[in-house]
Amino acid sequence: MTPGLDRSRVRELRQRYETELFENVIPFWMRHSPDREHGGYFNVLDRDGSVFDTAKYIWLQGREAWLFAKLYRKVDPRPEWLEMSKLGIDFLRKHAIRDDGRVYFKLSRDGQPITLQRKIFSECFYVMALAEYSRASGETKLLDEAKREFEKVWEFSKDLSKVGRQPMAGAPLLRNLAVPMILLNLIEELDDGGVSTYAAEIEECIAGVQLHVNESRRIVFENVLPDGGFLDTPEGRLLNPGHAIESGWFLQHWAQRLKRNDLSQKAANIIRWSHDRGWDNEFGGLYYFLDSENKPPLALEWDMKLWWPHCEALYAHLLNYQLFRDPRDCDLFLQTDRYTFDHFPDPQHGEWYGYLNRRGEVTHRLKGGPYKCAFHVPRALWLCWETLKQLEKE
Amino acid sequence: MTPGLDRSRVRELRQRYETELFENVIPFWMRHSPDREHGGYFNVLDRDGSVFDTAKYIWLQGREAWLFAKLYRKVDPRPEWLEMSKLGIDFLRKHAIRDDGRVYFKLSRDGQPITLQRKIFSECFYVMALAEYSRASGETKLLDEAKREFEKVWEFSKDLSKVGRQPMAGAPLLRNLAVPMILLNLIEELDDGGVSTYAAEIEECIAGVQLHVNESRRIVFENVLPDGGFLDTPEGRLLNPGHAIESGWFLQHWAQRLKRNDLSQKAANIIRWSHDRGWDNEFGGLYYFLDSENKPPLALEWDMKLWWPHCEALYAHLLNYQLFRDPRDCDLFLQTDRYTFDHFPDPQHGEWYGYLNRRGEVTHRLKGGPYKCAFHVPRALWLCWETLKQLEKE
Repeated sequence: MTPGLDRSRVRELRQRYETELFENVIPFWMRHSPDREHGGYFNVLDRDGSVFDTAKYIWLQGREAWLFAKLYRKVDPRPEWLEMSKLGIDFLRKHAIRDDGRVYFKLSRDGQPITLQRKIFSECFYVMALAEYSRASGETKLLDEAKREFEKVWEFSKDLSKVGRQPMAGAPLLRNLAVPMILLNLIEELDDGGVSTYAAEIEECIAGVQLHVNESRRIVFENVLPDGGFLDTPEGRLLNPGHAIESGWFLQHWAQRLKRNDLSQKAANIIRWSHDRGWDNEFGGLYYFLDSENKPPLALEWDMKLWWPHCEALYAHLLNYQLFRDPRDCDLFLQTDRYTFDHFPDPQHGEWYGYLNRRGEVTHRLKGGPYKCAFHVPRALWLCWETLKQLEKE
Repeated sequence: MTPGLDRSRVRELRQRYETELFENVIPFWMRHSPDREHGGYFNVLDRDGSVFDTAKYIWLQGREAWLFAKLYRKVDPRPEWLEMSKLGIDFLRKHAIRDDGRVYFKLSRDGQPITLQRKIFSECFYVMALAEYSRASGETKLLDEAKREFEKVWEFSKDLSKVGRQPMAGAPLLRNLAVPMILLNLIEELDDGGVSTYAAEIEECIAGVQLHVNESRRIVFENVLPDGGFLDTPEGRLLNPGHAIESGWFLQHWAQRLKRNDLSQKAANIIRWSHDRGWDNEFGGLYYFLDSENKPPLALEWDMKLWWPHCEALYAHLLNYQLFRDPRDCDLFLQTDRYTFDHFPDPQHGEWYGYLNRRGEVTHRLKGGPYKCAFHVPRALWLCWETLKQLEKE
């Protein structure tokens, strides 16, 4: 068990994550997010859960439908969880997807299109939701539907002009970490640990993520040249520590499954290096964005502390600790755990705050917004809880 | 002269604005922004003026070319100012505009296209620069070129699908304040106080701006329904105090020119009400965004204090004071002046910081970025300096 976490500490953590997930977080979404009239979920929720915009964001509809199907299948087959997932799935299939496979970004409450992004992420979360719901419900034809849409996603990812992004003569051909990273996770979800029909795609995504890692500088770049080279512009210097940490645990899952020690070490280091570089030593917490050469970041929100990088870091460090038993990983987990639980949860109304300023003061009291929903918090709590249960049994 | 500002106070202010403009701000841009090799200006400048990205943003190329032509024509015909303007004009005409009248948003250092926005603002700043340079240089054919491009801008503004924004079934037809407001300013620049060939267009823009003003609630909304009605969504509740204040002085210029007292009163109130609602009574300064019903603003940067709303407020309040001699306007001007000069200027390296957190601490040390350039600071200082000179003569 040791070094780092003794049995009683593990029990305390497991209990706290369990309580937080099942008593503070899930009930918030069960109570406030379902739209029983038009289907799908309300996404934009104030501190107390009251709806302050009825628009439906498709990333979030897909993520929430995924979450409740996952809980049903992996935690406890409560009918209300499956029904909750179905509410999103029916809405998504009816309103979110076009005949050409493109998926909208934002719909009105009753499912009329408002925005279509020149990105592939709506499509990704659509696939993820369908695949998980198919397994939870036993409706196998939905998994086929998910796989057909995944083929579209893969095709779009190879040629972004198919989602409306025309390449321009002066734009460097930068590769964004988000693309291979989300595809890694998507294939994990589609496969569900079974025999993969996507062996070539997975190898390509594993290589694609590694292209962003500069081993000698111990940096994970958000954008790199097609050969992995460094581009000395704000885009090329951009660091997104939470994103890098998330890609680390996605990669670690594949390293474990493929039984590759080298890859496992790399995945662990991606997490450690990104934390070291991303942590604010003055006020605590992970910065949202940084510039690798310490130039001024261009994003106005660069020094804010967001809930999701901390969620990703919680599970990533705990997974590292479970695999390597390195006290350094334990320290990183406990540092993140302390900051996170001191700053984000709202015991009064449930769920977590999403946005803090550099000092850790809440700047937005909302619980749900265009990018915050029933996803990062419950996913991290669930994954940590499962890991802690395994540690507890040792 | 009184109430509010006595002669010695006006002299002190006039001298301070003069020194700031001609000794702290203009020299920074003259020294650091020209790209003598490829033409145009470097836009992305660190605190000390060093270039940390060579990309060229067209809003900013147009604004800087406009500024130096304006200084040449209105302040002092220094050949280096006209030459500075020409550097931008030549680059813009050669690289920024397409045959169909669309103007790029971002180019590489040597003028290759990188980004084209689904907005009309690159086109607007292109027109503004060309019109002013034409008058400064005496090249009258450039004014014709500017007017032809303005016709395109007008056409685009009527049908945004022409700049790539397809209307979607679920999207409410919201009108954004930015459009009539920038067109008001653009026609002022095209006309230069002469007989307007745009009488109908101006009436439409004046009506368009007023649509955003709710007199009974003393609120200027950033987005309204086509009949001026309120939409209870984050977009409909959005307030952008700096933007509203800027539209106030644009409107006031037309009220003066058209000799309309009613409109002049309305324009003055737009400025006063937006300041009252936008001012942070705890830490000082104008918020960037607010929600009219005190729901959580969705923009992550809502509570930041940006340089440009303060620049707009300086001139807007001083103009109100010059016209109405209301001590309240004087107070608002002095409150803004104090906050602005306490927080934004950088006497060590020149120019002003652009981005502060809610407490007024500098979060980005850059002097130039994708949206900050040689424009709001020198324009406001110049307009205030001219106004203070007039007040001094009384």
